[in-house]
Amino acid sequence: MTEFHHAAQTDAPLSEFGLIRRYFTRPARDAVLGVGDDCALLSPRVGQVLAISTDMLVSGRHFFADVAPAHLGHKALAVNLSDLAAMGAEPRAFTLALALPEARAEWLAPLAQGMLALADAHGCELIGGDTTKGPLTLSITVMGDVPAAQALRRDAAQAGDDLWVSGTLGDARLALGVFWQEWSLAPEAFAAMRARMETPTPRVALGMALRGLAHAALDVSDGLLGDLGHILAASGLGATLDVDALPRSAVMAEQPPERQLQCLLTGGDDYELCFTAPRTARAAIAALSGPLGLPLTRIGYLERGTGIRLQDHAGAPVAFTGHAFDHFASER
Amino acid sequence: MTEFHHAAQTDAPLSEFGLIRRYFTRPARDAVLGVGDDCALLSPRVGQVLAISTDMLVSGRHFFADVAPAHLGHKALAVNLSDLAAMGAEPRAFTLALALPEARAEWLAPLAQGMLALADAHGCELIGGDTTKGPLTLSITVMGDVPAAQALRRDAAQAGDDLWVSGTLGDARLALGVFWQEWSLAPEAFAAMRARMETPTPRVALGMALRGLAHAALDVSDGLLGDLGHILAASGLGATLDVDALPRSAVMAEQPPERQLQCLLTGGDDYELCFTAPRTARAAIAALSGPLGLPLTRIGYLERGTGIRLQDHAGAPVAFTGHAFDHFASER
Repeated sequence: MTEFHHAAQTDAPLSEFGLIRRYFTRPARDAVLGVGDDCALLSPRVGQVLAISTDMLVSGRHFFADVAPAHLGHKALAVNLSDLAAMGAEPRAFTLALALPEARAEWLAPLAQGMLALADAHGCELIGGDTTKGPLTLSITVMGDVPAAQALRRDAAQAGDDLWVSGTLGDARLALGVFWQEWSLAPEAFAAMRARMETPTPRVALGMALRGLAHAALDVSDGLLGDLGHILAASGLGATLDVDALPRSAVMAEQPPERQLQCLLTGGDDYELCFTAPRTARAAIAALSGPLGLPLTRIGYLERGTGIRLQDHAGAPVAFTGHAFDHFASER
Repeated sequence: MTEFHHAAQTDAPLSEFGLIRRYFTRPARDAVLGVGDDCALLSPRVGQVLAISTDMLVSGRHFFADVAPAHLGHKALAVNLSDLAAMGAEPRAFTLALALPEARAEWLAPLAQGMLALADAHGCELIGGDTTKGPLTLSITVMGDVPAAQALRRDAAQAGDDLWVSGTLGDARLALGVFWQEWSLAPEAFAAMRARMETPTPRVALGMALRGLAHAALDVSDGLLGDLGHILAASGLGATLDVDALPRSAVMAEQPPERQLQCLLTGGDDYELCFTAPRTARAAIAALSGPLGLPLTRIGYLERGTGIRLQDHAGAPVAFTGHAFDHFASER
């Protein structure tokens, strides 16, 4: 269903379901029919295909149970918008399924505010949902438009392509290490890294700008090595990475070298785009950086073969034995 | 994302994520691009709008933790297909977000089998998903096609419309009462009612056949009184129900009268369609019953005003004080 009440309401206007409706239900804008019927109705646009993605966030696994609800609302949608960005798609609409132990106004209001502010910033309409009592879980399905021939697929990388990333890598992992008591950061540095972890910025404008320029793209949600591995597997290629070129924040640059490498190569949750493009697109891609206010950095290249070779700026091999994150393999 | 692994795989082929991929990943058919990229890609069809719905099922709330996984897989998709049916939409694709405490082949294989068998029966393609460790929760978003002008909306009922339901009502509630030890049933009767509860049949063909015939429709998921209330509220009307006309199974007809009334009026989870149609459509609707192999019963009519009046076949008022189900108000 597309209602924010899963059942009939026979009780007072300020019932818990009434609260959910109040915060999440708005009139349909772009959609033909929005929240409140069995289904929402969305009109396709001429010449576009619909890009669709789903992400589920579970309390204690993808976020701390005591995270600020406004940040949680932002992040739950941001990670989905990031998938659209990685496809070069323009956000249009999303649905939200929400399980929560209890419906409290002081928690739901900022959750909705954080989520809907990001939605509005991207013209992405909340068209439906479901709410139930249960362990705190958010599942969002997001939909966007992209011309079929310009979608940034993972299997379209070519040998000889440059490898690029947006922004800086590993910042969210640096914050997570503080929560996990692996290391500490000065308060101001921690606040900056924590903001990267809790309120990531989906690179939607970059994804759309890369249509026709990039060959393949994805968002770095589970760590550069693991995510790049998906492009390589899908495209049947290998890659060489210049670890000295990996873009890092000022806070990151102050960390011990081993910690930097760990965060840069395996830190997830930054939601930067990693993409491949032909050498001929270098100038055009570099020219996007200024208008987008976003660093775009060449970090290596794709080649025939398999696997990822790490080297320093001088071309000497770099050893690294960390591994990527598996939700079932890891207990964290 | 649309992968059934949320992280890089660096371990053995029979890892837990490998199992999930094995059971849920199939090549794209109707979709331009299916499971395995940041987004799936779906081409719109000319003249159709996309009907979209989301439902979330939580262990212990929407199903018993020890339910047969094949039944759970079936039901999780069925309740979503039922929302498409209630809109008159033709199923096309769905995404699955799955949180589960552990990935065991003997549980995942039948879950996938139950879900994908129903999906195949309706030509509804699994195009993406997300899997994570967490309390057992399934969230499905389903997409279907419907001509915009023929969608069966809740707000399109008209005064004087006949009120219809498909199939029989209250059977799932009768089974639930056995689990809750409210009453008992003979083994054969219980098995039949339990099948209605655990493997409901979404009335997809009926919904599509009602395009152009019915004015308004929804699926009875939370009980006839509560769900009918949604149509009445959306359309600004009242209704009179003939409780003697409510269609009931042979097992239901053997129950004490008060129990029958309770199950028929407030029992959810049957996923029959409740719809309104003009008197002029009576013959055409009745003629659908044979080909669909599905009883279609007139149970009352809509009228100006508000609220639902219950009466017996002779027109005498019937008293009923049960109430509908609220996921937050009820602890069950």
